[in-house]
Amino acid sequence: MAGSSFGKIFKITTFGESHGAGVGVVIDGCPPRISLSPENFVRDMARRRPGRHILDTPRSEGDQVEILSGVFEGLTTGAPITLFIRNQDADSRPYEILRQVFRPGHADYTYFKKYGHFDFRGGGRYSARETAARVAAGVVAGEILSPLGVKVVAYTLELGGVRAESIDMDYVEKSPLCCPDPVATERMEEVMSRARKEGDSLGGIAEVHVRSCPAGFGEPVFDKLDADLAKAVMSIGTVKGVEVGAGFEAARFKGSENNDPITPDGFRSNRAGGILGGISNGDEIILRAAMKPIPSISREQDTLDRKRNPAKLKFEGRHDVAAIPRIIPALEAMVKIVLADHYLRSRTMNNLSYKNPETFKEETRC
Amino acid sequence: MAGSSFGKIFKITTFGESHGAGVGVVIDGCPPRISLSPENFVRDMARRRPGRHILDTPRSEGDQVEILSGVFEGLTTGAPITLFIRNQDADSRPYEILRQVFRPGHADYTYFKKYGHFDFRGGGRYSARETAARVAAGVVAGEILSPLGVKVVAYTLELGGVRAESIDMDYVEKSPLCCPDPVATERMEEVMSRARKEGDSLGGIAEVHVRSCPAGFGEPVFDKLDADLAKAVMSIGTVKGVEVGAGFEAARFKGSENNDPITPDGFRSNRAGGILGGISNGDEIILRAAMKPIPSISREQDTLDRKRNPAKLKFEGRHDVAAIPRIIPALEAMVKIVLADHYLRSRTMNNLSYKNPETFKEETRC
Amino acid sequence: MAGSSFGKIFKITTFGESHGAGVGVVIDGCPPRISLSPENFVRDMARRRPGRHILDTPRSEGDQVEILSGVFEGLTTGAPITLFIRNQDADSRPYEILRQVFRPGHADYTYFKKYGHFDFRGGGRYSARETAARVAAGVVAGEILSPLGVKVVAYTLELGGVRAESIDMDYVEKSPLCCPDPVATERMEEVMSRARKEGDSLGGIAEVHVRSCPAGFGEPVFDKLDADLAKAVMSIGTVKGVEVGAGFEAARFKGSENNDPITPDGFRSNRAGGILGGISNGDEIILRAAMKPIPSISREQDTLDRKRNPAKLKFEGRHDVAAIPRIIPALEAMVKIVLADHYLRSRTMNNLSYKNPETFKEETRC
Amino acid sequence: MAGSSFGKIFKITTFGESHGAGVGVVIDGCPPRISLSPENFVRDMARRRPGRHILDTPRSEGDQVEILSGVFEGLTTGAPITLFIRNQDADSRPYEILRQVFRPGHADYTYFKKYGHFDFRGGGRYSARETAARVAAGVVAGEILSPLGVKVVAYTLELGGVRAESIDMDYVEKSPLCCPDPVATERMEEVMSRARKEGDSLGGIAEVHVRSCPAGFGEPVFDKLDADLAKAVMSIGTVKGVEVGAGFEAARFKGSENNDPITPDGFRSNRAGGILGGISNGDEIILRAAMKPIPSISREQDTLDRKRNPAKLKFEGRHDVAAIPRIIPALEAMVKIVLADHYLRSRTMNNLSYKNPETFKEETRC
Repeated sequence: MAGSSFGKIFKITTFGESHGAGVGVVIDGCPPRISLSPENFVRDMARRRPGRHILDTPRSEGDQVEILSGVFEGLTTGAPITLFIRNQDADSRPYEILRQVFRPGHADYTYFKKYGHFDFRGGGRYSARETAARVAAGVVAGEILSPLGVKVVAYTLELGGVRAESIDMDYVEKSPLCCPDPVATERMEEVMSRARKEGDSLGGIAEVHVRSCPAGFGEPVFDKLDADLAKAVMSIGTVKGVEVGAGFEAARFKGSENNDPITPDGFRSNRAGGILGGISNGDEIILRAAMKPIPSISREQDTLDRKRNPAKLKFEGRHDVAAIPRIIPALEAMVKIVLADHYLRSRTMNNLSYKNPETFKEETRC
Repeated sequence: MAGSSFGKIFKITTFGESHGAGVGVVIDGCPPRISLSPENFVRDMARRRPGRHILDTPRSEGDQVEILSGVFEGLTTGAPITLFIRNQDADSRPYEILRQVFRPGHADYTYFKKYGHFDFRGGGRYSARETAARVAAGVVAGEILSPLGVKVVAYTLELGGVRAESIDMDYVEKSPLCCPDPVATERMEEVMSRARKEGDSLGGIAEVHVRSCPAGFGEPVFDKLDADLAKAVMSIGTVKGVEVGAGFEAARFKGSENNDPITPDGFRSNRAGGILGGISNGDEIILRAAMKPIPSISREQDTLDRKRNPAKLKFEGRHDVAAIPRIIPALEAMVKIVLADHYLRSRTMNNLSYKNPETFKEETRC
Repeated sequence: MAGSSFGKIFKITTFGESHGAGVGVVIDGCPPRISLSPENFVRDMARRRPGRHILDTPRSEGDQVEILSGVFEGLTTGAPITLFIRNQDADSRPYEILRQVFRPGHADYTYFKKYGHFDFRGGGRYSARETAARVAAGVVAGEILSPLGVKVVAYTLELGGVRAESIDMDYVEKSPLCCPDPVATERMEEVMSRARKEGDSLGGIAEVHVRSCPAGFGEPVFDKLDADLAKAVMSIGTVKGVEVGAGFEAARFKGSENNDPITPDGFRSNRAGGILGGISNGDEIILRAAMKPIPSISREQDTLDRKRNPAKLKFEGRHDVAAIPRIIPALEAMVKIVLADHYLRSRTMNNLSYKNPETFKEETRC
Repeated sequence: MAGSSFGKIFKITTFGESHGAGVGVVIDGCPPRISLSPENFVRDMARRRPGRHILDTPRSEGDQVEILSGVFEGLTTGAPITLFIRNQDADSRPYEILRQVFRPGHADYTYFKKYGHFDFRGGGRYSARETAARVAAGVVAGEILSPLGVKVVAYTLELGGVRAESIDMDYVEKSPLCCPDPVATERMEEVMSRARKEGDSLGGIAEVHVRSCPAGFGEPVFDKLDADLAKAVMSIGTVKGVEVGAGFEAARFKGSENNDPITPDGFRSNRAGGILGGISNGDEIILRAAMKPIPSISREQDTLDRKRNPAKLKFEGRHDVAAIPRIIPALEAMVKIVLADHYLRSRTMNNLSYKNPETFKEETRC
């Protein structure tokens, strides 16, 4: 069973390759009567698109989202929604070398081992371009969450070892690197510039904040909200680590430090990152993802060819210096997709009108 | 849809509460003709059982696994296997207070918000006792993987801020804390002892190594091996972070440092942690999980009662000082469950005898 | 992937063998705060139990349902509910012969081919006893549907070629064969008596009526309500055919005869059997299932042994003359399970408060 | 959760509407290295296409299948395969009336009740055009089964009350109605011609034969092969009944008549229709589906408008007189899709090299 679907109720199935006809997604389980038009996708597709930053890959795609099904007279119908983004500017020539050799740190080797035959042009199925379909699906997820007031924002916390020190959420949109700190933004641009000159690449850390998420999302014991978020985020290419709330730091706290005291005005701290026992607690959800440096670099590397002979590779394809910031909208999208799925799932379990102990009062929308 | 099932082919469904009849698991999709008897479970159940370490919860359960279905004359039959572990030593009295107030940092609050009515005795469904069913299922997963030579070992890397400095894998079994470093083990015991006296608790970090995993496990783009491992591990109570290979450190490497060069003798380094593009590459799989300190502490904490009035709680139930080391076998179990599932999934996709490009040679068992 | 689970939100996983420890079911996705106790199961388990009719198998089981998880203080908690029915009166001796030879018309042969090793005692996993778990799960499904007013009733329409001519629904409960026609009941008993003397068995047809099902259940294009009902019913042992509404007769009608005219008072006829385009239309749902004669007979039959040598078999195990009427509660159960699942699924899709065209008014509960 | 996906390993997700951009399917789980090009689809798409028979709907679509993803250099890659069939000749004008009134016997009413807003043009999502995507997916399923020698053939057994008396399988391809009896074909054409003149429509029965299916396909107790086939077939629009082997007739046989004796040369009869206990037995698989007359007719009918006022409807849209024979390829496709899925599923369960009782010998390919 291949794993191209995600979600149980709000279920997305992505398809497409970097240098094929295009990339797309079928969304099954979206409720009817939600306004949706190609305009809804413009902002997020633009944020994901290469070319926003001078150091991004020079490939330029219009990335217009076509709605192939599931929308009638501007409203969703409950039928599966198909979104398609055509590939327009694909130059496959630099990838011909991959017919012979594997890029270290890339999926060339494992795809070869698993499938024997695969589309290596531009990374094919394992290209970062695959995230365009996720971003498009995330827009629809956002429309489902919108009446609940849920807001999902991600930003660059760290890039090439430079960390944002001040968090000015209003600056995120302005920063070419989606970084909330103007000073850090500048320093990040410097390290990126240096890395590009060296033919090298950089990693980073992104942080995601979810505001106004109702309490009650998450289905223990396996489909806990944090477990599904971890999978969603880790399934994005280049992500090597994910943590919620205090995350790895929590390992060093004592219980008395890490437990968030509960008060009539809410939680006094948020070490939990908004999730307790796998269920949202109504507080802000906070998570972080670590991205490795992009494996495609133009410095010479030791590798093998398909016949297992040693080879040297200096790869000259177009590629970004860092996955961040273009991965920011993909992160937001995956978080929204998880939340939309869990919102709809919660409707089958939470607050149904069976016997209601007197102590139980509905205080949240969820 | 509640989330009590995990896996797509090797699919487990756990059930049971800490102070109910018992905990158990139904395993669907296990191949026939695998030897299985109650003895297979003894070692791992003993490792998970409280009482192993002097600072563990004084609760003592025999934790014998009954096989209720799916095994005939000592061999699996292909029918669902049901494993049941009865609760024997459950004292629910200290939990009566939870009828009124929520323990900070625990799932009491979110279960109340989501379900209105829930079994709070001993943590009910969200008790660490739930992991007993996972450990039992992990034993069966291990039997499926066994002919492939796959070995899964987890150990305590850090506890209460004390980190293992030397890694002696032979010592892991001997250490009462599953720690590969005898000196660190001793210091960890000291900090645990101090925390217990203070009525407090500690977190930690565990590391898991998988040896001899064939290349080719993992189903992109969502059911990548690392994505499924992240979900599996994050679904264990108290886990707040997970990372693969270099993990969060990878964010600070350059591509030229992070890419593992490929040689005829294998990968020269293993920053990838054995997974590239979501597919195992044949190298050792390495991941780490961060556990928060157990939220049940006996120090006084600020909280609310069910009517939203402020309350003070000093909770006296039996509990561990640290989730580690008892969580070690649960971690191993979840990793084995993911691998068994992906092994069986790979059989539907990898190396089927359709058209085989001449360059493709089967070099791995997978 | 073995197929022991059914349903997407209200999801049941059955387990157990006829002569093992018992049979049972884990129900995941049941909403919280539904009253449930062992008493709820008594009536339906008694209807399914052998011994009700003089011609039924002499095996006698108490068939008491133990609730192993998911219920606290008499109410469901939202956690998985495990129901277990112990085997008490299992005599495996007559089945020893099945170590060597296959019963014609039975699953012995295909289980051998598929699994190599299987529990043949009393039919093991493919015994009619497996339906006890379905009946138990059906009781819980019924509790979910109960506030909607949904009523599911099945009866014996035909047995051994004798067909009910008059339909007196009040008589169904009184008839030892669940037949709504007293005269037909008597004639059915005669043919059963004769078949038993001849060491033979009989088939039959059951009809199921669902009253007060809201419009809007069913998820096209694959999880149509009739498609899921067809699978649910066909998955019961001995069922060889299923039809909805006019069923096979519809093939001979013209459109002008088969289309049910719609009036302000509802549909003027019900050829559709309550389902249009895979979605319930608010009218009575009607379906029929055809059961083959039970394959275990005591007349001599030609067969093979496991080494493919010809053999003669005169099988003397305990068995019913006809699957009907004991299959009636299993049929009702499967229909209730499908409806409960689709009710919960409909909550994620129907009538969500997004943009609501003015012509759309909510007129049903669904 | 909407139900647009089918299959567990070979999983298809269809999308699209009759008068939207087109219809299509994403196939996830198809093994790599299978030859696939647009030419593979030509024959089956032509068989399904309107215009083949003079009495078919005059709508004419090229029905060319575009491969949007998953194929590289003529071979599948293991990535999801997307097939898209553009709509070219859609005239939505006759459907404007459906903005107000419901066609009796059609899904207009239930879609309105469920979704509030839906695409009624040409039947939108519930149009027979939806089967084009199934037929395309069936072609890929056929390629997976092809090395096993599996052959799936469906034909018209009965139409408008006329039944095929002689079965000449070679004639099926020649008959414009896919009927194996030349005389019956002629009489069927007469009744169709008469029905068209009367503005009426006709139903029918199709029979499907599967040759050379290995023993061992099917996953009890819910995903039995016959249960999945029943769902697959019942999910096709207009199907109201399905039966396997002797089907409803089996209800009238005695066990001694219905059990197929087993001999060294195979089964002496095939009342079982090739499936025992939900698992293929190696014999020919036989099933039948009953189709109701198409609900769209041009005779005046009583109905309601969307405000629940009585209305008269004489519907003049383009439509077939009978769903058969155009549904024949869709039936074959769904059967192939079920078999491909179960073939791949069987690889995770059947004949794995664990402990092998000496009596077990592999005699089938499966």
